[in-house]
Amino acid sequence: MIEYITSGQSHGKGMFITIKGLPSNLPVSEETLNAELARRQRGYGRGGRQKIESDRAEILAGVYRGRTIGAPVTLAIWNKDWENWKNAQPPAVVQPRPGHADLSGAYKYDMRDDVRKVLERSSARETSARVAGGAICKSLLSEFGVEIMHTVVNWGGIEIPLPEGMSYREMGEISESNDLRCVADGPTSDKIREMVDQAAADGNTVGGTVMVAVSPMIPLLGSYVTWERKLDARIAQAVLSVQAMKGIEFGLGFGYADTHGRDAHDEIFYDREAGRFYRETNRAGGIEGGMSNGEAIVFRAAVKPIPTLMTPLRTVNLETFEPESASRERSDVTAVSAAGVILESVTAFVLADALLERYGGDSLEQIKHAVENDPALSSFRWKRS
Amino acid sequence: MIEYITSGQSHGKGMFITIKGLPSNLPVSEETLNAELARRQRGYGRGGRQKIESDRAEILAGVYRGRTIGAPVTLAIWNKDWENWKNAQPPAVVQPRPGHADLSGAYKYDMRDDVRKVLERSSARETSARVAGGAICKSLLSEFGVEIMHTVVNWGGIEIPLPEGMSYREMGEISESNDLRCVADGPTSDKIREMVDQAAADGNTVGGTVMVAVSPMIPLLGSYVTWERKLDARIAQAVLSVQAMKGIEFGLGFGYADTHGRDAHDEIFYDREAGRFYRETNRAGGIEGGMSNGEAIVFRAAVKPIPTLMTPLRTVNLETFEPESASRERSDVTAVSAAGVILESVTAFVLADALLERYGGDSLEQIKHAVENDPALSSFRWKRS
Amino acid sequence: MIEYITSGQSHGKGMFITIKGLPSNLPVSEETLNAELARRQRGYGRGGRQKIESDRAEILAGVYRGRTIGAPVTLAIWNKDWENWKNAQPPAVVQPRPGHADLSGAYKYDMRDDVRKVLERSSARETSARVAGGAICKSLLSEFGVEIMHTVVNWGGIEIPLPEGMSYREMGEISESNDLRCVADGPTSDKIREMVDQAAADGNTVGGTVMVAVSPMIPLLGSYVTWERKLDARIAQAVLSVQAMKGIEFGLGFGYADTHGRDAHDEIFYDREAGRFYRETNRAGGIEGGMSNGEAIVFRAAVKPIPTLMTPLRTVNLETFEPESASRERSDVTAVSAAGVILESVTAFVLADALLERYGGDSLEQIKHAVENDPALSSFRWKRS
Amino acid sequence: MIEYITSGQSHGKGMFITIKGLPSNLPVSEETLNAELARRQRGYGRGGRQKIESDRAEILAGVYRGRTIGAPVTLAIWNKDWENWKNAQPPAVVQPRPGHADLSGAYKYDMRDDVRKVLERSSARETSARVAGGAICKSLLSEFGVEIMHTVVNWGGIEIPLPEGMSYREMGEISESNDLRCVADGPTSDKIREMVDQAAADGNTVGGTVMVAVSPMIPLLGSYVTWERKLDARIAQAVLSVQAMKGIEFGLGFGYADTHGRDAHDEIFYDREAGRFYRETNRAGGIEGGMSNGEAIVFRAAVKPIPTLMTPLRTVNLETFEPESASRERSDVTAVSAAGVILESVTAFVLADALLERYGGDSLEQIKHAVENDPALSSFRWKRS
Repeated sequence: MIEYITSGQSHGKGMFITIKGLPSNLPVSEETLNAELARRQRGYGRGGRQKIESDRAEILAGVYRGRTIGAPVTLAIWNKDWENWKNAQPPAVVQPRPGHADLSGAYKYDMRDDVRKVLERSSARETSARVAGGAICKSLLSEFGVEIMHTVVNWGGIEIPLPEGMSYREMGEISESNDLRCVADGPTSDKIREMVDQAAADGNTVGGTVMVAVSPMIPLLGSYVTWERKLDARIAQAVLSVQAMKGIEFGLGFGYADTHGRDAHDEIFYDREAGRFYRETNRAGGIEGGMSNGEAIVFRAAVKPIPTLMTPLRTVNLETFEPESASRERSDVTAVSAAGVILESVTAFVLADALLERYGGDSLEQIKHAVENDPALSSFRWKRS
Repeated sequence: MIEYITSGQSHGKGMFITIKGLPSNLPVSEETLNAELARRQRGYGRGGRQKIESDRAEILAGVYRGRTIGAPVTLAIWNKDWENWKNAQPPAVVQPRPGHADLSGAYKYDMRDDVRKVLERSSARETSARVAGGAICKSLLSEFGVEIMHTVVNWGGIEIPLPEGMSYREMGEISESNDLRCVADGPTSDKIREMVDQAAADGNTVGGTVMVAVSPMIPLLGSYVTWERKLDARIAQAVLSVQAMKGIEFGLGFGYADTHGRDAHDEIFYDREAGRFYRETNRAGGIEGGMSNGEAIVFRAAVKPIPTLMTPLRTVNLETFEPESASRERSDVTAVSAAGVILESVTAFVLADALLERYGGDSLEQIKHAVENDPALSSFRWKRS
Repeated sequence: MIEYITSGQSHGKGMFITIKGLPSNLPVSEETLNAELARRQRGYGRGGRQKIESDRAEILAGVYRGRTIGAPVTLAIWNKDWENWKNAQPPAVVQPRPGHADLSGAYKYDMRDDVRKVLERSSARETSARVAGGAICKSLLSEFGVEIMHTVVNWGGIEIPLPEGMSYREMGEISESNDLRCVADGPTSDKIREMVDQAAADGNTVGGTVMVAVSPMIPLLGSYVTWERKLDARIAQAVLSVQAMKGIEFGLGFGYADTHGRDAHDEIFYDREAGRFYRETNRAGGIEGGMSNGEAIVFRAAVKPIPTLMTPLRTVNLETFEPESASRERSDVTAVSAAGVILESVTAFVLADALLERYGGDSLEQIKHAVENDPALSSFRWKRS
Repeated sequence: MIEYITSGQSHGKGMFITIKGLPSNLPVSEETLNAELARRQRGYGRGGRQKIESDRAEILAGVYRGRTIGAPVTLAIWNKDWENWKNAQPPAVVQPRPGHADLSGAYKYDMRDDVRKVLERSSARETSARVAGGAICKSLLSEFGVEIMHTVVNWGGIEIPLPEGMSYREMGEISESNDLRCVADGPTSDKIREMVDQAAADGNTVGGTVMVAVSPMIPLLGSYVTWERKLDARIAQAVLSVQAMKGIEFGLGFGYADTHGRDAHDEIFYDREAGRFYRETNRAGGIEGGMSNGEAIVFRAAVKPIPTLMTPLRTVNLETFEPESASRERSDVTAVSAAGVILESVTAFVLADALLERYGGDSLEQIKHAVENDPALSSFRWKRS
């Protein structure tokens, strides 16, 4: 029901997103969008551009007096430097960077004369539009109590153990409060900073692993009946569509190999008093049979190191076909600190879409009424009060 | 361009798949389909039903005198026992199995009176239809030299190291030749069989990890321009849509956390003689910027242990809301040996779709002509002769 | 939400349809489907095949103990003569028929050696699958009181005036009771039969115009917010996708040219007693701004004469490129008598889809609850009790 | 392959369109877009706003140095008066206009407090975005010689006969040169102007019929194999999705009722010299079996009179539920003069999409190469040199 298209180039007029299928009467303010955009720009290891620019979203369409009207919403994140750039005629780039869309993109689209035509679009700056749009979907979900958080669980090889018994909300709040976006203790944090600084000094970059949790999560969304409705599969597509993401696992994920069946699933219990089903474990990461089961949705995503290095990798000149160094675009040391915010956003799109699939989607009031009166929903212990 | 719907219940008349968007003049024979179906049923640790039944596909529509005609193709895999089943009135199941669609499905679809209505559809038997349909997509791809193989790289916690320097084709052939579908040496194979046997004896089940490789892989398929065209993201959705899959990683995957940028990418080289780009490494798993780059596409998928155990997990009776044991459906000890064939199939759908996206898709001759005359394609060393 | 694919060839094993997105717990019986199939085969001017064969639908998947289970439904209409046909090797057809897909299809799909490969799929026999599937959508709609009828308003140039003040239901019932499927009086009926008989005698064929009405029609379905959600546009696509349809008009349709604005719209009134809006006219044909407005949806469709004539049109032999007569396939004198049933079916798909868009669509109970508790809906006088 | 979303409100910041799926390297200039926008605003009977404002498109994304780069294209048509409007707080509208989305929209989206929330989006001003976007699709088609024109064939009940033997191009040029956008002779033109003026004086509005022709039209686009690929059906959806359109007919259209089969189709001939098929008639309007057949695509669309009248229709106040007059929005006397340009635009989207479906769609060069080397295409006499 909810679909979106982003557009825009890294050094063009701006980044744009148009979202269709949003219900009417949902409050949307530029402040909320900007808060999410700011979250995307914070974090350790971000380079020059992130510091200079502070992205702001402008609502171009679809919002009237602070609320959606059922119509497509268009947002713009203007490039503040466009006025300076537009008359510049930067020389063509003919050194495709390994690890990027450059080489394949140039050949696929017959744009070998200037790889800029590729990298302007493939740039991770595109994710700013998804974060702005995702903020609206997060608003919609929050109307139903659904919250999304993230925490970095591996910074460039340094694992950050999650404190036992800590709620996802708490993990999220701690991660939000520090520039490593994780729950590492002091010594581990120092070690991580040192590692990132060393990589920066070496002209190197670092990757990592980010965990996203949706809690509370409304149950019964997604489905097993057809392959393209499975909730985990849809989240997987959304996550892998984000620049630099190379893997995803739900719940025990690749750890299932080490866990035999008896310890790999979540037994079902019933709280007679409350009249609700619950689990004591959440190995499945909140999704069984392609549907949310009322437990937190938990997944981890693998973030690759940024391939644009200050000590560039070897490549080939597209004009001369001679070996050369890859072009150096101004870049960050790591995308890990931004990744989580982006993953929250793309997850929000999937969940909002699945919500409307079950409950219809013309107005916020209509969905609220449907959710509140759904007897199936109230049979699950999903809302932690 | 290529879309499909499967239908059918586990103990219904059969499983069905209808595929639209296939080009005309592609040879399709039931023999080819059956060979793939047989592959799905082979392997260690498969239980009763797999041994009894030998699935066979019948072409119901879309093929005329051995070739497609551009029309939708419908395949049936009839349940041989339907005649026996159809008059049976099996009692209602009201014990939802943990790890399955049972509980959420029963509540989502208002079918709490009989969980059979859920499990009949959510059953992994559905994948037989995808394997039959995938065989057609594999045929299409093979017309362009594209080959898909798999090998198990982790059997229930036992890692199977891949011999250095071995080609994907060879790995595939070895895996095809043994019932563990892997390249393990004798002692490791013994250890795996022992482990699986022990699990079976314990009424337990085992998971694992399967690697899929597409090699040679046609470059320039997929795209970075919009989120839903990214090839890795589409494969991720396809893979996670398969029953029991809980994770996917491309190339170094979660290992990127341990690898800094300088060693995490694939430098670009050019063979002047051949006039072709190539890489000496394939850390990206053959996809950069959401496009195939001419190297092998390589990903790993996490397979969870089958949640239906002979020593069942605890659940709740949906009529009495009292604790109870989950229902025991006749089941296998592991899905690992079948998983790879299914993953090949769903990957084939994605790749065939992306092929037609770039080259159009009315007839096989037309696509062949376009591929053979594509100068961009011939600039990549993708076809290993 | 609801999508379908049909498959099958005219002289293949049968015609098939797979529908996804249907809610659970909807009663479906082969009797209901067969009743609609029989309606499609009745009527004046149908030729040999319609008389010999009496189509019957078999439910292959998606129905369990008489009700849907949320899963895709597959239906088969087997060709009873398949056993006789399958060993026949009919000679290739190389005389493409004007007015059919033959010529363009043969070139588009590189199947010039035998036009049979085209006509087997383009045949109007495909509509039998849509009628069977549409019967399920009609069942779903009838749960909400929505009824669809049709009547022929022009038989080969002979206009059939609609009696003033007659309800759509009554028109439908009268049309259902005669083989001309119209409300013509005796003399007009005689004239029509004579005209059709004369055409048959001349080896000629006749077209006409069919009116479809949906009454009562649930209001507020469809939307103006994006182009592809407009209800009239979706119905137009569905109707024009039916073989032989060449036009559609809603309400006054092409007659709007003759009517100035003041007499071209439907003023809005309110029944204070009942608390409901209503109109005294229905010039819009029940759709304003791409949404149903609570009045009957009324449209007319132009049906062309069947292009397969017993005195064939001139064409060109695809082997010799010499002038030749078009091939004669066994055919009817007219499709007018069958068209209405097919149009009802394809309309039902669109309306069912739009229903689920607004109300969600997991189970029949859920949709019913949503519709019954929709305050917006109860503000319109749509349900004539 | 090509999809678009428009956004924006009539008195909001502007109208926007984002198009995805366009090939790379297609020249796009704001001049071209503005020329089409100007065409939309010309014509007899357009009211105040059209005269005051002269729409101009700004390219926000997807074009780099004058050419597309395969990325989504976003266009803006800014409302010049936004600065004046934005601080105004126009009073709520609670008088839904008959013939518009107002009443149903207000109830569907729970926006009964102010119908402005509906009419701002349902306004025909939205079509400016489609015209700007359609101009890009027309550019793409013109690279292959495909041209789209229109002419008004009925102005408020006054039929405009088409001169026999006149080519579509000539009709288009004549229509382009006068403000009635038709080929009427002097006396008929006078009569039309008089009629429109009288309607204006009466506070009334007029509708009409517009003919669109695509000539030359590339053959073999669209398909018969599945219902949603039929070219005529897709055009029908596109046309009926345009505000005020109430009908469409291809070729003889509703006139097929009056024409028996022998005179209703287009016999097939072959020019041995040129090696090409051709027709001597074009009763089908260029589409057989859901595919273009190489002849001109010709359809007629019914345009209803604008329902916003200066002597308003009766309606009901949504607050008091008392009878009232509909709100008067500043409006034109007729949409007939603008309709044709909009219809050309939406047709261009469908045809461009179908073009890419057959030939793939990454770069302009690739499509050109495919079209030029298509032996099937060169068997039809579609390109009039």
